[in-house]
Amino acid sequence: MPDGDSITGGGEHEFLKNLCARLQSENPPASGEVGPGDDGAVFATSAGSLVATTDSLVENVHFREGWLSAEELGLRAMAANLSDLAAMGATPSKILLSLILPETTSEETTEALTMAVAQEARRQGATLAGGNLSRGSELSITITALGVLEQPPLLRSGASRDELLVVTGSLGDAALAVHLWESGETPDPPLRERFARPKARLRAGSVLARAGATAAIDISDGLVADLGHLCRASGIGAIVERESLPRSQAVDRRDAMGSDFAANGGEDYEVLFTLPQSLDKDLAKLAGQCGISLSVIGKTTDQPEAITLSDAQGNPHPLSRSGFDHFGSKS
Amino acid sequence: MPDGDSITGGGEHEFLKNLCARLQSENPPASGEVGPGDDGAVFATSAGSLVATTDSLVENVHFREGWLSAEELGLRAMAANLSDLAAMGATPSKILLSLILPETTSEETTEALTMAVAQEARRQGATLAGGNLSRGSELSITITALGVLEQPPLLRSGASRDELLVVTGSLGDAALAVHLWESGETPDPPLRERFARPKARLRAGSVLARAGATAAIDISDGLVADLGHLCRASGIGAIVERESLPRSQAVDRRDAMGSDFAANGGEDYEVLFTLPQSLDKDLAKLAGQCGISLSVIGKTTDQPEAITLSDAQGNPHPLSRSGFDHFGSKS
Repeated sequence: MPDGDSITGGGEHEFLKNLCARLQSENPPASGEVGPGDDGAVFATSAGSLVATTDSLVENVHFREGWLSAEELGLRAMAANLSDLAAMGATPSKILLSLILPETTSEETTEALTMAVAQEARRQGATLAGGNLSRGSELSITITALGVLEQPPLLRSGASRDELLVVTGSLGDAALAVHLWESGETPDPPLRERFARPKARLRAGSVLARAGATAAIDISDGLVADLGHLCRASGIGAIVERESLPRSQAVDRRDAMGSDFAANGGEDYEVLFTLPQSLDKDLAKLAGQCGISLSVIGKTTDQPEAITLSDAQGNPHPLSRSGFDHFGSKS
Repeated sequence: MPDGDSITGGGEHEFLKNLCARLQSENPPASGEVGPGDDGAVFATSAGSLVATTDSLVENVHFREGWLSAEELGLRAMAANLSDLAAMGATPSKILLSLILPETTSEETTEALTMAVAQEARRQGATLAGGNLSRGSELSITITALGVLEQPPLLRSGASRDELLVVTGSLGDAALAVHLWESGETPDPPLRERFARPKARLRAGSVLARAGATAAIDISDGLVADLGHLCRASGIGAIVERESLPRSQAVDRRDAMGSDFAANGGEDYEVLFTLPQSLDKDLAKLAGQCGISLSVIGKTTDQPEAITLSDAQGNPHPLSRSGFDHFGSKS
């Protein structure tokens, strides 16, 4: 399933991988289509290819009461889905919104959340086409996003050896905000914003897909974990230079003291791309077109599934547990 | 929103109607498209029109632990969505499945539920294209179904005065099954089946759309409530003959003693159509093509929103609360 990997830890990745494999083998996707197991599903219409993805935001799993306003709940749920479209190189088209709301949720909250989704859809050139409201004991927001492709989709499986690993924006801010909340502290507004109003990298997805990116994945489960999925799907390995991960000052300070918010935190809705080395010289120009910084963080190797995080001296860096882990299962 | 009316009671219908109106006015659907407020959203592609709908099944709101097997959870969640496609006259194409599962849910349950959805999709000519798994304290199943239209969609707003009100199958069985469970009794297998393995009336939807039906609505919130939505959308009224509602023996026995499972129960995933009177003579033939019985239960009138349930003597029948109501908010 597109976002099946959002349940981390335990044997669940393995279980989901097997479930996707069973679904694919019992019902192989038609030529030009992509079934469960990538950031989004792809299916052909005579008008071109559509991408569909779905993702949920669940109270006490993905956020806690009081962290986010109603508007921000809508924006974060949208970003989770739009980021999957970005990682396929797709442009959003239609949005469906399923809300499960406790009886204590006010009509004002419901309306503010819904209008935030509708307005964000419109900002991205899409439409909130429909949805559903149900009662439940626990607030959850499930969005299905449909996107259109103007070029072949960026899959997890398209990377080869000796390509550049490139990430958008900066990593670790949202996970650090969660860590601070969970520690009883209040994140600074800029840090809080990265969790509460994340920006999906839609322009980067379509610009880099057209420029020749070979693969991409939404890294909201954490860079190292999601890079692992890309490597498995592509049958390659990777070396990531820990020092080259793009960080805000706040994350830099923590990671310098031994944390791994940038490598391990996730939650930022940045996207990882693989690019042929020939595009290295064009990166600054491409970043301008994407409207977001692009950082080379390492390269792919021919060693299947071997992922190394190297420190400043080039030695393997043992990954620390990020502050986020004690929030429990992330997704 | 397509299924926004699934929260019944209180001022919620009014709230949802206003929310849909606000969404529609801030972002009017393009020509040939249908926005929030019908059974499904319709949008145009150059390959034809697609219909999208989404619906959730939430534990302790739509079912209780022990009522349904994992497979049946998948089948009932599918029926809820396919029934909305049926009521638009659409044919299922792609399915997305979002599961929110407590940690206590076994991998076997997750797999059985997912495979039931995939297999039901395939039986209906569709594909489980993707999905998402999240943790949560409460089990819920949210499905998004995409369908294709081979003719203009059947909307709630298309009915005129003096048309036939026609329903598929029989009414009240699923609500009676719920009533029995909630009363500590065990429904007979045939009754239980109507709740656990409901059949969406997809063939009826496409056959009657082609035959000239003017409007349709999924009546899983109860015949009278959903007929109200159709009448409001079409600016008409309706008279329903209580005696002519199609019932199983079990429901007939209860309703003869004063219950209104058939008129009020819902949960069956039958569909209500309006047909021009000229089709009356063709009903038996059409029922054969639909593969399900079709019953004329009354007619539309020119009195906006006036809905009358008439008894055997032609007098207005005051609706009793069905056994289902004490299950709380249905949706």
